Amino acid sequence: MAALSDPDLLFAPETRTLARALYAAVKDLPIVSPHGHTDPRWYALNEPFPDPAQLLIVPDHYIFRMLFSQGVRLEELGVPRLDGSQVETDGRVIWRRFAEHYYLFRGTPTRLWLDHVFEHLFGIDEPLSASTADRHYETIAALLSQDDYRPRALFERFNIEVIATTEGALDDLKWHRMIRDSGWKGRVVTAYRPDAVVDPDFEGFLANLDRLGEITGCDTATWAGYLDAHRRRRAHFREFGATSSDHGHPTAETANLSDAAAQQLFNRIRRGSEDERERKLFRAQMLTEMAKMSRDDGLVLQIHPGSWRNHSPAVFQEFGRDKGFDIPTRTDYVAALKPLLDCVGLERDLTIILFTLDETSYARELAPLAGVYPALKLGPAWWFHDSPEGMRRFREMTTETAGFYNTVGFNDDTRAFPSIPARHDVARRVDCAFLARLVAEHRLREEEAHELARELAYTLAKKAYRL
Amino acid sequence: MAALSDPDLLFAPETRTLARALYAAVKDLPIVSPHGHTDPRWYALNEPFPDPAQLLIVPDHYIFRMLFSQGVRLEELGVPRLDGSQVETDGRVIWRRFAEHYYLFRGTPTRLWLDHVFEHLFGIDEPLSASTADRHYETIAALLSQDDYRPRALFERFNIEVIATTEGALDDLKWHRMIRDSGWKGRVVTAYRPDAVVDPDFEGFLANLDRLGEITGCDTATWAGYLDAHRRRRAHFREFGATSSDHGHPTAETANLSDAAAQQLFNRIRRGSEDERERKLFRAQMLTEMAKMSRDDGLVLQIHPGSWRNHSPAVFQEFGRDKGFDIPTRTDYVAALKPLLDCVGLERDLTIILFTLDETSYARELAPLAGVYPALKLGPAWWFHDSPEGMRRFREMTTETAGFYNTVGFNDDTRAFPSIPARHDVARRVDCAFLARLVAEHRLREEEAHELARELAYTLAKKAYRL
Amino acid sequence: MAALSDPDLLFAPETRTLARALYAAVKDLPIVSPHGHTDPRWYALNEPFPDPAQLLIVPDHYIFRMLFSQGVRLEELGVPRLDGSQVETDGRVIWRRFAEHYYLFRGTPTRLWLDHVFEHLFGIDEPLSASTADRHYETIAALLSQDDYRPRALFERFNIEVIATTEGALDDLKWHRMIRDSGWKGRVVTAYRPDAVVDPDFEGFLANLDRLGEITGCDTATWAGYLDAHRRRRAHFREFGATSSDHGHPTAETANLSDAAAQQLFNRIRRGSEDERERKLFRAQMLTEMAKMSRDDGLVLQIHPGSWRNHSPAVFQEFGRDKGFDIPTRTDYVAALKPLLDCVGLERDLTIILFTLDETSYARELAPLAGVYPALKLGPAWWFHDSPEGMRRFREMTTETAGFYNTVGFNDDTRAFPSIPARHDVARRVDCAFLARLVAEHRLREEEAHELARELAYTLAKKAYRL
Repeated sequence: MAALSDPDLLFAPETRTLARALYAAVKDLPIVSPHGHTDPRWYALNEPFPDPAQLLIVPDHYIFRMLFSQGVRLEELGVPRLDGSQVETDGRVIWRRFAEHYYLFRGTPTRLWLDHVFEHLFGIDEPLSASTADRHYETIAALLSQDDYRPRALFERFNIEVIATTEGALDDLKWHRMIRDSGWKGRVVTAYRPDAVVDPDFEGFLANLDRLGEITGCDTATWAGYLDAHRRRRAHFREFGATSSDHGHPTAETANLSDAAAQQLFNRIRRGSEDERERKLFRAQMLTEMAKMSRDDGLVLQIHPGSWRNHSPAVFQEFGRDKGFDIPTRTDYVAALKPLLDCVGLERDLTIILFTLDETSYARELAPLAGVYPALKLGPAWWFHDSPEGMRRFREMTTETAGFYNTVGFNDDTRAFPSIPARHDVARRVDCAFLARLVAEHRLREEEAHELARELAYTLAKKAYRL
Repeated sequence: MAALSDPDLLFAPETRTLARALYAAVKDLPIVSPHGHTDPRWYALNEPFPDPAQLLIVPDHYIFRMLFSQGVRLEELGVPRLDGSQVETDGRVIWRRFAEHYYLFRGTPTRLWLDHVFEHLFGIDEPLSASTADRHYETIAALLSQDDYRPRALFERFNIEVIATTEGALDDLKWHRMIRDSGWKGRVVTAYRPDAVVDPDFEGFLANLDRLGEITGCDTATWAGYLDAHRRRRAHFREFGATSSDHGHPTAETANLSDAAAQQLFNRIRRGSEDERERKLFRAQMLTEMAKMSRDDGLVLQIHPGSWRNHSPAVFQEFGRDKGFDIPTRTDYVAALKPLLDCVGLERDLTIILFTLDETSYARELAPLAGVYPALKLGPAWWFHDSPEGMRRFREMTTETAGFYNTVGFNDDTRAFPSIPARHDVARRVDCAFLARLVAEHRLREEEAHELARELAYTLAKKAYRL
Repeated sequence: MAALSDPDLLFAPETRTLARALYAAVKDLPIVSPHGHTDPRWYALNEPFPDPAQLLIVPDHYIFRMLFSQGVRLEELGVPRLDGSQVETDGRVIWRRFAEHYYLFRGTPTRLWLDHVFEHLFGIDEPLSASTADRHYETIAALLSQDDYRPRALFERFNIEVIATTEGALDDLKWHRMIRDSGWKGRVVTAYRPDAVVDPDFEGFLANLDRLGEITGCDTATWAGYLDAHRRRRAHFREFGATSSDHGHPTAETANLSDAAAQQLFNRIRRGSEDERERKLFRAQMLTEMAKMSRDDGLVLQIHPGSWRNHSPAVFQEFGRDKGFDIPTRTDYVAALKPLLDCVGLERDLTIILFTLDETSYARELAPLAGVYPALKLGPAWWFHDSPEGMRRFREMTTETAGFYNTVGFNDDTRAFPSIPARHDVARRVDCAFLARLVAEHRLREEEAHELARELAYTLAKKAYRL
């Protein structure tokens, strides 16, 4: 029977020959993973991964949201409840439930990633279904208990040159310290994600500011001290390899208040202002402050706006964050970013990477902005759009105005460590197929496509993220 | 010469072989038409259809809007004026006028549907043009006078397993009663469309509420009585086979007021409130009320939002509704549906089918919502998007996030009875072509594509609409 | 080596044979350029063009915005500063700088246009790069000094049947007069662009109104006199061949005030109202006034809305307008145009051509509007969307609802005279490829595609613009 994951995956028949040739030259390039959410603890402790269900199903919101949409309860998939009440814990039962519903993923990127993982990581060549569920489970479980399937071994096997994790501003970075002190050669860097001390709507915001003061020795009761605390944390994160910060705001709104106005705003926020406009304005101002700090300390600024987090209050209350209920919203950039751009948009040594969940902004806003402001670059197709069609639309809608060189290669942006090679593989394939199409239509010369394939797979990410 | 409607219609050359094979297995499946606007009177009385122009041109807004856009007056096409003044009545003259302008439809779905009807229903193999107009007319007119071209004969010839019509809440369903009493085996069901008693902006709204009270014996002067009246009408519609309700609101806005607040709102609306915000809020609340009733009585809830009806007041005044002047608008779902979803979105036994005229919502809002909320499913590409490119975009922009199984197959949504097989044929072809492309790129296995082709053509519609 | 600009450029392999055949029959049709921004002075004086950099780089915002986005300063590219301070003036230096960065344009239309110009106008067959920069420069410079590379010779060589320039309402049209008096047979017409006397936010608006009064002898202190002044200028422009007016507003908003209200509004605006809503309302009202004048005098009305001009105040202050910092914004048409359409939308002898920078409006708003209102037609893909992908999306998203015949062929809309044949060539190729795809999928018959190829390349532009 055919391989689970065909060698010609994602190559259109009409341009396949060239796509293959382009891909052959980039498929084995090292993985640069400049933005993601794997757990540094894995690399620090290097313990074996848990059972197949706990590794592949329970933490993956792409998977359980689809099953939930078709009537499977989260408890049946082992997703923990906040009240600690009983959920399924038998990995084999969870796995079977998943396998019975695997057909739901037809046509989705999750299916491509998982088939790739089954085949390339676990050597399985049968499609997953109710009838093969147990065999898959056993094969995977047996391999996970082997030493060469521990995190560091996989890191090396995956040919990861560097991976960035993402830590909150209050994180002690102890796992990163342990990795550094361990003498292991794998390059794992952190990234500065200060939402908890920047967004007044974040759980425990005011207490977080107090804690930020304690950690840094800065007086976070004052605007100046608060900014200083950020500077110190950023410096600390840079010691652990950070080259970027990351900001997940509900919108891309920015502000550029005078120092006096910003200070007054901070004072009101610090006293717990309930005024939604003020809280929003504070987030907006902080994006600009972060950009100014980036200008000074060289951290690349990533903006990930436009997700309506925890859309279902019932699910949020019972299961917490990141349970598949984050829904994209319409996102404006042209007006929203203007205050920030008026302040630092023309800086040549600053890099701000924009992401979107609203594809309508690609051709209309993002490509025109990134195609002229020196500080701006476009992040790759993100989240729901981290998919073959999503990536294709990204290239089709941004390249003509922003070119390739105002984009930054691929981000896997994942918590799902075993799927990282699959995700980079899909991205490399889609880009090679896109380039092959351009060559086939004589919009690009073949040697240019080869150069670009390498840039998109490897070089641009390193350069844009200063890795 | 080539057939008017080629056997390979809509199959791309590069994936044609597989598309043909997939299509061959589904093209003769029975038609399930779960939502549309054919006239139940046709099936009840089974009288011959009128002349070709009255059947195919005069009632089809896709057709007369295009001719109108190019300077043909509606009167010249026989479209009746509200003041009863003279319009063209000679079917042959109307037909010639249409034939002279048939070239305007190049590249449109209307052209595909009509060529399919000409060839497959009327056995014509010449393209329609000024010079062939009379021959077409005579051929069609002669066939329409035959008994085997009466509505029930065509229903059977079309292999329709079940068709839903749409009736207002005040409709007496007498045609449906007549169909049921006739002993004819054709399955024609109704659907509950309560806009006239739910939307304060509907013509005669307050009188409609009075009438609703009379029909049901409920006191529609009170909120409780008004809701009860809906429940009774829904039960009555279910007796005539209804499995769904349908709601055509200007937006997708919903509300979830307390009982007390809803009752107060109803009282103000019942007294004829002119406050636009209140009228809007009432519509919004009623979507949630309908969803709650659906949870109780099992009717599938369809929401068709986002059309700016009767955009030209001059045309509306002279010719009335449904004259091609309904224009799509930007439509939000993520914020708009939240109140309803907070109330019933997690229900596993409730089905709410969302439609849109704003394709930007496919990947950004609709697929992410339907891909997680158990109550939500996505209706097919609608109205202007019921077309090859529209359907292709629908699949490309929803499948990766919502999968195929959160969609509900095809709706023809038409008043144009003779075009029903053509419309289903186009949908089946587009879906087979889409699946063939996925297989060609190794994103799906061939046997899966065969299963899916059948689901998309037949099974999903039956299941989603509980038919 | 391969030609710089391949004979099969933009033809997909799978439909290439037919695309070639369609294209062969239209590639040599005369160029009709109904809307653009070339300088009539060129045709009037017929002086040699300046050096390659001054001709091809310095004035082309597509080019310098891309280089600027990657850190090249505008001064280094010879873009003049408003304060007159030093910028690069050595054409050869500018050219080299450009050549070194030419790889940035991979995948962009600028690259296609320039390679076409290099090959077809200057006979160059080597790709431009740092190492070939000087050879290109010299070849081009030498040719530009020849008589057969002067503007009129190129005009004839380009086979331009008619070209429209665009002049402000206050322009004296002296170059057009000189062209007319010269006896040269080239047809160069003007177009009426009254932004400077219609938009209260335009620099010098009130003084412009005074000047408009002087030129026309009308009392522009009164609403009636102001409207009369427009009528006279329009008549004057028509003497110099104008068949169209053009309006570049921030939005597509229109208004339809009573005469009394319009007069009062004008009085407030004339006294320098600072009220942003009034200024906006005045622009909106003036679109409707212009449409009413068009109904009377037959000028085709073009609306180019939705660009946020001069997004960077720093660049605007230092370099002025048109420096690549005009960014598209979300644009509504359905509500915005309603007042105008209520007034004149059903007129059969009026032509209003709509453009957009917001592609989401194609299928949702523009095609449905143009597919029913007799006065409306759709302009081609504009500005950032004047590109292969942009044109393809335009056809894919408008044709099914508006057909081909509610579109108006191609506009080059350019200041870059040498690129005009390249731009029309790209448009013809994309349209032929699109038609070939329709034929390959049996959505169109081959003879229809041939007819349409000619309409799209030539006939529709002449007819829509009344040229």
